[in-house]
Amino acid sequence: MKQIYDLIIVGGGPAGMTAGIYSARQRLKTLLIAKASGGQMSRKAVNIENYPGLGNISGFDLIRKFESHLKEQKIDIEKNTVRKIKKDKGLFSILTSDKKQFQSKTVIIASGADPRPLEVPGEKEFIGRGISYCVSCDGPLFAGKTVAVIGGGNAGFEAALSLSSYVKKIYILEAGAKIGAHQDIQEKVEKTGKVEVITEAGLKKVEGKDFVESAVYQDKKTKKDKTIQLQGIFVEIGSQPATSFVKDLVSFNEKDEIIVDPKTNQTKTPGLFAAGDVDNVPYKQIVIACGEGAKAAISASIYLQKL
Amino acid sequence: MKQIYDLIIVGGGPAGMTAGIYSARQRLKTLLIAKASGGQMSRKAVNIENYPGLGNISGFDLIRKFESHLKEQKIDIEKNTVRKIKKDKGLFSILTSDKKQFQSKTVIIASGADPRPLEVPGEKEFIGRGISYCVSCDGPLFAGKTVAVIGGGNAGFEAALSLSSYVKKIYILEAGAKIGAHQDIQEKVEKTGKVEVITEAGLKKVEGKDFVESAVYQDKKTKKDKTIQLQGIFVEIGSQPATSFVKDLVSFNEKDEIIVDPKTNQTKTPGLFAAGDVDNVPYKQIVIACGEGAKAAISASIYLQKL
Repeated sequence: MKQIYDLIIVGGGPAGMTAGIYSARQRLKTLLIAKASGGQMSRKAVNIENYPGLGNISGFDLIRKFESHLKEQKIDIEKNTVRKIKKDKGLFSILTSDKKQFQSKTVIIASGADPRPLEVPGEKEFIGRGISYCVSCDGPLFAGKTVAVIGGGNAGFEAALSLSSYVKKIYILEAGAKIGAHQDIQEKVEKTGKVEVITEAGLKKVEGKDFVESAVYQDKKTKKDKTIQLQGIFVEIGSQPATSFVKDLVSFNEKDEIIVDPKTNQTKTPGLFAAGDVDNVPYKQIVIACGEGAKAAISASIYLQKL
Repeated sequence: MKQIYDLIIVGGGPAGMTAGIYSARQRLKTLLIAKASGGQMSRKAVNIENYPGLGNISGFDLIRKFESHLKEQKIDIEKNTVRKIKKDKGLFSILTSDKKQFQSKTVIIASGADPRPLEVPGEKEFIGRGISYCVSCDGPLFAGKTVAVIGGGNAGFEAALSLSSYVKKIYILEAGAKIGAHQDIQEKVEKTGKVEVITEAGLKKVEGKDFVESAVYQDKKTKKDKTIQLQGIFVEIGSQPATSFVKDLVSFNEKDEIIVDPKTNQTKTPGLFAAGDVDNVPYKQIVIACGEGAKAAISASIYLQKL
């Protein structure tokens, strides 16, 4: 007979790993399913300076610390991608992309978010040939080159700061009139002397032959098109929650985030919880995602006690 | 002219220190007022095993890590006790017990909670003479003796586990019929072989001459009074939010916790936020308090931008 888990956690970022630590310590029979550890921490281009108690630490090192903490717990881990979650007669069935099936009494969705695409001509052709969604993965390939970062929020400025240590020149293109990045990171970027920030720049297309050669944007003030010669484009315009596998069991807000009760992290389906960047709790931060993962695991445990 | 802060944080536990890290990084002119660092972490009798990324760590060491992280930030710290918070013409005035006054545009209350007293005859007389509210502070004084822990929740079992390494015998008295502690800690306590758990035990009085000599409880099943000979009593029956200085500006729930919007941690007074054990977000955990501290600081920053 196939075993039934008390809790299956979908996702291996800060929310999912914290939920795993909490559920194992409450002796729930737990399975964590994730393709890789760390979630968006693995895409962090600069050091993480705001996870309390750890000062200044790279995303890579923080992931290792979470992983080793999680591995001290009694918990099953499956490296896989979830394709579909169904609920039938009070039990959740989780189907993976390679057609394995797992059953559980409760589920925590902590699948995070994927980078939001540009949706302009040229984007798809040049992915991996000049267009990247991950500075920490691909940045060093552009040493000595000219690049653009699309997006003037924290992520865009962090990307520019990281790139500035080895690229020649960086444009930050922001579609809006205002820069959203926090003051501290703006100051650091300015000090590099390598970054030109262009606001009200609406990216129109990416051009090139085999690799990216230029980007065309509309200057929204003058309504004129302008072209920048460059070799790389890093996309940092936010993310979209990873929820395709669970559409029927939850409700979404206008940002496609799963709506939860912010006190318990329960979704509209009893026994189904969500935590971290995938849900509608505002302010996407590692320590906030951790707090939510802990809440969701405690809520799952209380739900199980009442069964 | 006296300076006006952007943000004053009241409290130096996990929520307050995280709020300080976040606000300083957002370049808010910030003052943190607390008598001591660490909040309830300093009362932790056993190691903390569920703060993600730090594995198994003593409360003392975790406080040191938070402190050193906070001290890297540009933030003012005042070792003091807050007596009163008032709001007048959009500005908060904070008065300390030694009559210093500070002004700020926003405030985060992260003052945590104090141990709940027993409220039985003998309690007040024997505080410091056998009755204690802090195992990590006073436990070792009872080496080789017989003690009782009042309260069968996580805190009570953690206290018993810590005491078991040096006392002779421990009674855990729980007023209810059920033990509230998590399974993992119950198992560890049982393994010590030194602990006797008595449920449905309603403590009636504490007796002794110069020091505690016995505790009398009612066995609620038989309605009969019973007496235990012992030398120490550790009180672990929960805590009450520390809110006396802010009664007029906030609303409370039935547990005397400050009611906040769980998405933003704002109280009913604009510009006044609460985070951590003092508020009505359920599940009192270090990492949840940290997440709330981060949320409150970001909310304060957004509030200031809109001023």
